[in-house]
Amino acid sequence: MIGKSVPRVDAYDKVTGRAKFTDDLVPANCLVAKIYHAKIGNGIVKSIDTSKAEALDGVVKVVTFKDVPNHCYPTPGHPWSVELAHQDVADRNILTGRVRYYGDDIAAVVAEDEITAQRALRLIEVEYEEYPVEIHPRKSMYGSKPPIHLDKKDNVLVRSNYFIGNVEEGLKESETVIKRSYKTPIVQHCHIENPISCAYMENGRIIVVTSTQIPHIVRRVIGQALGIPWGKIRVIKPYIGGGFGNKQDVLYEPLNAFLTTQVGGRPVKLDITREETFCNTRTRHSIEYDLTAGVDSEGHLLAKDMLAISNQGAYASHGHAIAANGLTAWRLQYACPNIKGEAYTVYTNTPVGGAMRGYGIPQVCFAIECFMDDIAKEIGMDPLEFRKKNLIRGYYEDAYLKPIAANTNGIFECLEKGAEYIHWEEKRKEYANQTGNIRRGVGMSLFSYKTGVWPISLEIAGARMTLNQDGSVGLMLGATEIGQGADTVFSQMTAEVLNMDISDIHIQTVQDTDVTPFDTGAYASRQSFVTGTVVKDCANLLKEKILAYAKELLPEETRKLRLDHGWIMAGKDPAISLGNLALESYYSLGNSSVITAEVSEQVKKNTIATGCCFAEVEVDIKLGKIKILHIINVHDSGKLINPKLAEMQVQGGMSMGMGYGLSEQLILDEKTGRPLNGTLLDYKLMTMIDTPDIKADFVELDDPIGPFGNKALGEPPAIPGAPAIRNAVFHATGVAFNENPLTPQRLIDGFIRAGLI
Amino acid sequence: MIGKSVPRVDAYDKVTGRAKFTDDLVPANCLVAKIYHAKIGNGIVKSIDTSKAEALDGVVKVVTFKDVPNHCYPTPGHPWSVELAHQDVADRNILTGRVRYYGDDIAAVVAEDEITAQRALRLIEVEYEEYPVEIHPRKSMYGSKPPIHLDKKDNVLVRSNYFIGNVEEGLKESETVIKRSYKTPIVQHCHIENPISCAYMENGRIIVVTSTQIPHIVRRVIGQALGIPWGKIRVIKPYIGGGFGNKQDVLYEPLNAFLTTQVGGRPVKLDITREETFCNTRTRHSIEYDLTAGVDSEGHLLAKDMLAISNQGAYASHGHAIAANGLTAWRLQYACPNIKGEAYTVYTNTPVGGAMRGYGIPQVCFAIECFMDDIAKEIGMDPLEFRKKNLIRGYYEDAYLKPIAANTNGIFECLEKGAEYIHWEEKRKEYANQTGNIRRGVGMSLFSYKTGVWPISLEIAGARMTLNQDGSVGLMLGATEIGQGADTVFSQMTAEVLNMDISDIHIQTVQDTDVTPFDTGAYASRQSFVTGTVVKDCANLLKEKILAYAKELLPEETRKLRLDHGWIMAGKDPAISLGNLALESYYSLGNSSVITAEVSEQVKKNTIATGCCFAEVEVDIKLGKIKILHIINVHDSGKLINPKLAEMQVQGGMSMGMGYGLSEQLILDEKTGRPLNGTLLDYKLMTMIDTPDIKADFVELDDPIGPFGNKALGEPPAIPGAPAIRNAVFHATGVAFNENPLTPQRLIDGFIRAGLI
Repeated sequence: MIGKSVPRVDAYDKVTGRAKFTDDLVPANCLVAKIYHAKIGNGIVKSIDTSKAEALDGVVKVVTFKDVPNHCYPTPGHPWSVELAHQDVADRNILTGRVRYYGDDIAAVVAEDEITAQRALRLIEVEYEEYPVEIHPRKSMYGSKPPIHLDKKDNVLVRSNYFIGNVEEGLKESETVIKRSYKTPIVQHCHIENPISCAYMENGRIIVVTSTQIPHIVRRVIGQALGIPWGKIRVIKPYIGGGFGNKQDVLYEPLNAFLTTQVGGRPVKLDITREETFCNTRTRHSIEYDLTAGVDSEGHLLAKDMLAISNQGAYASHGHAIAANGLTAWRLQYACPNIKGEAYTVYTNTPVGGAMRGYGIPQVCFAIECFMDDIAKEIGMDPLEFRKKNLIRGYYEDAYLKPIAANTNGIFECLEKGAEYIHWEEKRKEYANQTGNIRRGVGMSLFSYKTGVWPISLEIAGARMTLNQDGSVGLMLGATEIGQGADTVFSQMTAEVLNMDISDIHIQTVQDTDVTPFDTGAYASRQSFVTGTVVKDCANLLKEKILAYAKELLPEETRKLRLDHGWIMAGKDPAISLGNLALESYYSLGNSSVITAEVSEQVKKNTIATGCCFAEVEVDIKLGKIKILHIINVHDSGKLINPKLAEMQVQGGMSMGMGYGLSEQLILDEKTGRPLNGTLLDYKLMTMIDTPDIKADFVELDDPIGPFGNKALGEPPAIPGAPAIRNAVFHATGVAFNENPLTPQRLIDGFIRAGLI
Repeated sequence: MIGKSVPRVDAYDKVTGRAKFTDDLVPANCLVAKIYHAKIGNGIVKSIDTSKAEALDGVVKVVTFKDVPNHCYPTPGHPWSVELAHQDVADRNILTGRVRYYGDDIAAVVAEDEITAQRALRLIEVEYEEYPVEIHPRKSMYGSKPPIHLDKKDNVLVRSNYFIGNVEEGLKESETVIKRSYKTPIVQHCHIENPISCAYMENGRIIVVTSTQIPHIVRRVIGQALGIPWGKIRVIKPYIGGGFGNKQDVLYEPLNAFLTTQVGGRPVKLDITREETFCNTRTRHSIEYDLTAGVDSEGHLLAKDMLAISNQGAYASHGHAIAANGLTAWRLQYACPNIKGEAYTVYTNTPVGGAMRGYGIPQVCFAIECFMDDIAKEIGMDPLEFRKKNLIRGYYEDAYLKPIAANTNGIFECLEKGAEYIHWEEKRKEYANQTGNIRRGVGMSLFSYKTGVWPISLEIAGARMTLNQDGSVGLMLGATEIGQGADTVFSQMTAEVLNMDISDIHIQTVQDTDVTPFDTGAYASRQSFVTGTVVKDCANLLKEKILAYAKELLPEETRKLRLDHGWIMAGKDPAISLGNLALESYYSLGNSSVITAEVSEQVKKNTIATGCCFAEVEVDIKLGKIKILHIINVHDSGKLINPKLAEMQVQGGMSMGMGYGLSEQLILDEKTGRPLNGTLLDYKLMTMIDTPDIKADFVELDDPIGPFGNKALGEPPAIPGAPAIRNAVFHATGVAFNENPLTPQRLIDGFIRAGLI
């Protein structure tokens, strides 16, 4: 089963429209909620008048920031910590009268239908006192009056740093010292399904059906936001239309939970628009990097120094974890005796940065991998050769990430495959000295990525399995299918251990905090690794129980029993069918006890995935247009559970990577921080037309750490595309762009500055 | 917690309308199905033309008996048996062309809405070949041409019998021999919510949301009916509006499951009408009894002989189990050296008899307890004294029910309480010699009732508990809340073992065969006894795990740890709160593992509940009207888990018992077997106006067998009312009515025959 490209278990239902998403589960009589968003970028609400809205026929309830419980809460999808110091920043309320960014949530309307709710919003009258808006972290970090959050006088959410060796000494010893600055844009996840939830009450408890990656965390955060015991909340997660990290944040679930309590527990649907999703959910942080490196005469890195300044926006969300993850990556890949890293995460009056596929690594990878090419150029070395010279060989050993031990490192094989596909050697030479308007280039980049969050944070997962009467197995997990194929992969793992057909594994796709085991959810590319470990252990436990029961049914049998596709085999002979064994376990008058297995387990390990992207581009200098001719990602993600699904993961990630490199950015109004292109018409997501043939390849080393030799694959594909394209453009034109995306405007500006136009 | 009248956990939701029943869960786009019922009482479908129905706009699918899978299946809510001989009779198909009773299911329509479905039914054209209709079992048992079921030439479904001692010898030795015949009517359960289900497909599996008492059995029977593996079916049971045994049968779930497969897995709702519920679901069997008894000169029973003939109707359903249960009761209560029992269950062309509260005992109790009064009258003894003389003293020991050992028997205390309440001694004398039109009388009856079905059939239950982050406990069962208060009682039991507040027990009321543990469901008054045993064991297991984890958190602690309302106590001191322990178990970086417990267990025991009813009536002879002046049930059901709920159970059961005695009967047309009064207007259910003040009392012996000293209470309250009323009328008027209900027409006929009018 492992390594087989079985079709997705949810393919048929998703293609035919049978699959049920949150909106499919909303009851017919559901009330509809809409949010009143601030029309200024910074300030306070001086007065709010909801009387006209309340008087509108069909309006059931209007609540404002004055009505909500006074419990600050954090929103990121992290496991809770029992240590105060490790708890996430709790800096927001369900609604606010202190507007911190354009669109902040001031009030909400609950009405009998959507049109009435929308009309009621227009009847709410608000007077503001406005403060100056600051959208740039390099300015905001020195403070504002008043500060964005009162307890943060300088608007710096967190600063962190580390030293390895002595960077200043290292730079002094270096033959060449290079300094560059890079910047990445704010982008948005653009999952198909906007955040939507439906909340109601049952037996004094609040039930929230929601499109989330992290139902168990949503439960906890609602409890914190409303100030009620977590057990009084139940969160149900059906199929979701993508998340990419945005739904690894607790978005409007606490508001919706609060609203149902205000209307006697009636069901309330809160289905935000695409425009609200752009402005009011989460984005990928824009981060600015100042990098310095020293290399010796042979091109070895002797010292490297990173300063990162991350634009958090108005609320903490995942906050500094993203910039910090970039700081860690600065250590992991390229060997260097002297390393320094420093990062600031800074509140500004912009939409909030949160988790997005790659969790800080797409940003830092853009900076590092552009920098690698810029250094190579400076010292006159082939950039691939320069990287190979400096890459860590063998397994990653990191002072801060001790549990990573003796994992496989396939980066060199990846680079070989990528270089071969793109014809690196020939094309680097062929395109070295071009003239004219149309020029071609090849570029590459590489990355490394941790699998899950241990030891920085908790890794725990749970699984429960039941032997059905027909010998099929029910599988329940707290881990979530978010479109990535988790249900299929976990079914394969179970079938593998139990040596069964996958059609006999019935996975419960809906997570329900009341009934499915505890798992922190889909993020950090953790599930096939962390939850996979627990699935394996649980399946082994179930197998043991089945075989033990078989021994009772076959008391004379002395041969070793094993499972084989619906049979208990004694040696080479079928002894009893699994179906008949199951029937006995349910219905025997002598000895019946239904066979189930449940495991809840901490997974105290990690392993590092790597990979690279190679791209060949054609640049039309006068049009400022990049055409990608060829592009490949090669991944070392250990053993692939399902190669076809893995390839699809990479294809999707590469599309994101290309968008990040070429076209995607959320543009904010300087005066208000308001998104100027927060619609799918104006925000330039890659479409079918923009997308070249993209190639995914793998180096399948059997990693000794993962449950089936597997390592992270969920997020990595989105990481290396943007810098590879930038480096290919650099190769084609000689112009080093230090900020993505490479839009026509940015390219033409650059080419004019470089004298090409 | 045990013995406390805590409010029902579902009270608030049910009173406010928040509680979700099947119809509340039907998706907005659901198709609607309607059934085409036969318009004859016996025969075959010669031709069926559905073309006009199919052509109707909005009709999605029409299926007939020709389209359904050819798998005969059984419908009763019994555990499956792995032994062929113990499996239920499989004698029906999803639809049929062989019409066996008026209203048999020939075809079904699926349409976009209910009106279209209804219209389409009228466009179906059917030609029949008719056979003679026989609705009386005493005639049908000698056969029909053709037989109702081809493999049963004499229309006898099952005959069973037993002998203890030698009845003929016993009768010879008797001073007095009495023979009487009794008959009970067909009645219907009249639960508020008609059977309703919604079926759809997901990932190649069929999901059925249905109003049932037995979700796990519904799953199995759908599998049998459709001929697909049972694991491919998922049954979800929300709150239901009563069942009383009718929903202990698998009714239209197989048809609905089949229909969704015929419309591409789209959701299909099948919501039958009250008229269909009367005609096409199940009824309480009409049973005729011929009883003979011999008593000695002191009034001791020396021999007793029972012949029971049960009218099964057109399909087997629970079949002979009901008549057989009556045969068993014939042995259990009154000591007698020579006993004979023989029962026939006979197919006829009538609506189908199935399980109904009391499962054959209301019928046999009517016969036996009328007979006891008739014997007492014959030998000139007070009927209460006669009973006391013959009742088994101490615990019940039965050759056929060996596992019942040393249970408590509170019948004498019950009789004492009942007699005292009704002023038996005084009133038997006071009313002895009345004349005139208005006469009063007191009567009584008693019964015994097994708790669950062991050892006749399997008893198995499952429970799963989870310690939530706030120290509250999630409780999942396969046992079902059907209005009786099961959720409350199981929450109390859990709170008792864990020494917690009941508000910290969050029971999962919805059963879902994919996720909730296996349990055969609500019937046989089994749940608080059988499932209660497993709940106790599971809670003890959870407690052990909590305390074991507490020991790890408190390594220095040497005192004995115990749970006390949210705290782990070490001796007399609080050591750690359960909430903090739970947080550690979820989130500790050192040692986290969520604490859950699951138990699936056979319960190989039984115990017998007893009780009695005493009634005082006033009879208006000329009007043929009975007024109940006082009525009391006194129950020995062991320890009461929740006295208030117990009282409510008794009140509801007594209402059913009074209806059975006074007014309820489903009247069938002699020529067709068609119900003539199958509506709530014409079928005379007891209403508020008809109901006197009713009194419930208990004798609470601490039974050593039940998990908390408790015995059956679900069904018993419905049993003794009818014969007590009949015996009171006998006392008042001297007229012995041998058939219930005592309608004005039956009374006046009897009084005319007796010369009173």
